[in-house]
Amino acid sequence: MSNKGNAIIAQSGGPTAVINSSACGVIREAMKSGRIGQVIGATNGILGVLKEDLFDMSAEKPETIEALKRTPAAAMGSCRYKLKSLEESKADFERVLDVFKAHEIRYFFYAGGNDSMDTADKVNKLAADAGYELTCMGIPKTVDNDLAYTDHCPGYPSVAKYVATCAMEAGRDTEALYTADTCTILEVMGRNAGWIAAATGLAARSPEDAPHLVYMPEAPFSFNKFVGDVQEVLKRLGRVFIVAGEGLKDEKGNYVTADSRAFSKDSFGHVQLGGVADMLKAVIEKEVKIKTRSNKLGTNQRSAMHFASLTDVNEAYMCGQMAVKYALDGVNDKMVTLVREKGPKYKCTTGLAKLSDVANGEKKVPREFINDAGNHITDAMRDYVRPLVQGEAPITIGEDGLPVFMRFKRKPLEKKLSKYM
Amino acid sequence: MSNKGNAIIAQSGGPTAVINSSACGVIREAMKSGRIGQVIGATNGILGVLKEDLFDMSAEKPETIEALKRTPAAAMGSCRYKLKSLEESKADFERVLDVFKAHEIRYFFYAGGNDSMDTADKVNKLAADAGYELTCMGIPKTVDNDLAYTDHCPGYPSVAKYVATCAMEAGRDTEALYTADTCTILEVMGRNAGWIAAATGLAARSPEDAPHLVYMPEAPFSFNKFVGDVQEVLKRLGRVFIVAGEGLKDEKGNYVTADSRAFSKDSFGHVQLGGVADMLKAVIEKEVKIKTRSNKLGTNQRSAMHFASLTDVNEAYMCGQMAVKYALDGVNDKMVTLVREKGPKYKCTTGLAKLSDVANGEKKVPREFINDAGNHITDAMRDYVRPLVQGEAPITIGEDGLPVFMRFKRKPLEKKLSKYM
Repeated sequence: MSNKGNAIIAQSGGPTAVINSSACGVIREAMKSGRIGQVIGATNGILGVLKEDLFDMSAEKPETIEALKRTPAAAMGSCRYKLKSLEESKADFERVLDVFKAHEIRYFFYAGGNDSMDTADKVNKLAADAGYELTCMGIPKTVDNDLAYTDHCPGYPSVAKYVATCAMEAGRDTEALYTADTCTILEVMGRNAGWIAAATGLAARSPEDAPHLVYMPEAPFSFNKFVGDVQEVLKRLGRVFIVAGEGLKDEKGNYVTADSRAFSKDSFGHVQLGGVADMLKAVIEKEVKIKTRSNKLGTNQRSAMHFASLTDVNEAYMCGQMAVKYALDGVNDKMVTLVREKGPKYKCTTGLAKLSDVANGEKKVPREFINDAGNHITDAMRDYVRPLVQGEAPITIGEDGLPVFMRFKRKPLEKKLSKYM
Repeated sequence: MSNKGNAIIAQSGGPTAVINSSACGVIREAMKSGRIGQVIGATNGILGVLKEDLFDMSAEKPETIEALKRTPAAAMGSCRYKLKSLEESKADFERVLDVFKAHEIRYFFYAGGNDSMDTADKVNKLAADAGYELTCMGIPKTVDNDLAYTDHCPGYPSVAKYVATCAMEAGRDTEALYTADTCTILEVMGRNAGWIAAATGLAARSPEDAPHLVYMPEAPFSFNKFVGDVQEVLKRLGRVFIVAGEGLKDEKGNYVTADSRAFSKDSFGHVQLGGVADMLKAVIEKEVKIKTRSNKLGTNQRSAMHFASLTDVNEAYMCGQMAVKYALDGVNDKMVTLVREKGPKYKCTTGLAKLSDVANGEKKVPREFINDAGNHITDAMRDYVRPLVQGEAPITIGEDGLPVFMRFKRKPLEKKLSKYM
């Protein structure tokens, strides 16, 4: 047992290209501080804590830790296991505290979104009530970019750079073959916020560039207006390239689905395949009568390490590093935020937000980032996203011509408690 | 009018990341030869010839020509307009010859697949019958890699590198989040040949690496066996990452579609959305009862310049360059082929194949490249594809952090004939 106390780091929710960079920042800063005992990884986020499935970071080679910065997804493992209120998930919260006590955990670094910040906040409160000294620090992570109190979220700049490039490239494909494949729809992630869709707008440097139309959940979607938009671009350019956020909603706030219109009679009660792009493709082929293709990048967009933003990798690392520094300075119950300094040149530093505030906040694409017609972005959005996608993150290429990613050795910590789940 | 005769270059069919590199090779070699008069681009492939929609390459800046090597899709424009037999498409073929005569075209360089080689061959025969001196050279191009007589097709190595990397990255996503999203299916192109799907197998360096299962149209697909395959991997690893070629076929050679099984009762007569990945996802969720995601890269895979193979860019350029050299050496009615030299170190040179042979040939993934179970590749396939994906093609990045692609100025040639279509 060390007098310094140990630290647990865990990763939660949907992976990103840079959540491992944040982990790298935490691990290195914690190890070099000399003020933290053991640095411990939790396998699969809070599930690893509950199951006491922990591993010793000091057993990992320095080059493995370094390679975190060039490895996408969540190298420690992630989960979507949700702890609810302290009352509803009482046993879980108490188990977390029991595991922390058993391994003398005094620092909990949790990288994730709203729910993870909520969990960290509640663990912190429970520890305080129990008189157990614990520091809980959150590290922002989400490709969706919907966390409040931070200028942007690590993970978002990389997906922004990648999807904008994909729109540009597939846009050139449509431009080349418009005589046959006249329309293409690119579906991107973002169930409630349109940040990812909005980022693709940066690719449209001139009116002939893709994407010609960008639909975000924040702008109410109307099928009639959509068909009109497509016809207008078609008339002007002879082709149409569309980006659609997966979570488009109508004016009543309901998700736009295949049942919303095009197939209301045919498909009622039947299994519907495909996402929003497939559905819009069917609408266009029926109403505008042009051949349409649909691309759905899916999880490839959030794991695209091969074209990640170097700015993102560096900022994600900084968030992890600063979480440790703040914690050792006595800060507690906070998430590290990214602060865009004022001035003509982009500069990003860190700040702090209360975990509970972040847990209950949400950041959508503001109205002034979306054009009046609700089908593209404004210069304000371009100015917001442009600095974030600067630089190409280095990757390691193997002899086989493909990227090389790390995996942890995962030397397990001896379990000290009985089996929980 | 020049005594040297002029050259037309045209691009056909589905775009690739490197068809413009081939164009660059043709244009530069033709311009520097001193033996060709005007180098002329046809807008949208053979459609541009038929419509006399031609532009003067000498009006383009050298840096525009150079940037072809860093621009995906088909910068001159492409089409899927198919000329059939000389009898059936008589008017079209005669028009092509009329346009060639009007612009004193003595060299026709056509980059494309089987159909384009067929067109070039027939134009050549018609010219010979008419006593008009003409040299027709084909340049191989297809991401599908299904052209016969060439070791591989320019365009394929880049898509191979990209989709293998995508499988690797999204595979890490599934590995990180298997406790929630247990299965992922990546759908790739290849309606009749499984070369693209097969390339992803290279990403599986160890049994835990994605993809765990790779399905190609060449191996007859059985739903029952598929479900068994998924269950086996799930038992072994707790997660499953699958690659499916879009053109999977059952034992009778029929395309596997949503109507094949899972929704045979519900969906009869109804519009079916989504591709093979969405359909397999539905099968897995129904039969194996694990949450499954589907990614469909679509045209993004064939236009992914940002992670193209440098080997591919160089070989595509070489094919264009050699097409001109061969033509000036008196070769006619041939397609340039890529020849893999024997020996331990990969070396690729060019050869020649008759246009009519290529037009009627087809190259599928050989049985020995597919494992006995029909659900992954063998070392023979790995050895085939590994040298092709070597090197990362350089791209130009703009101040906005995104790639920069070229567009032609397209100084139009004066039309000399009446309107045709």
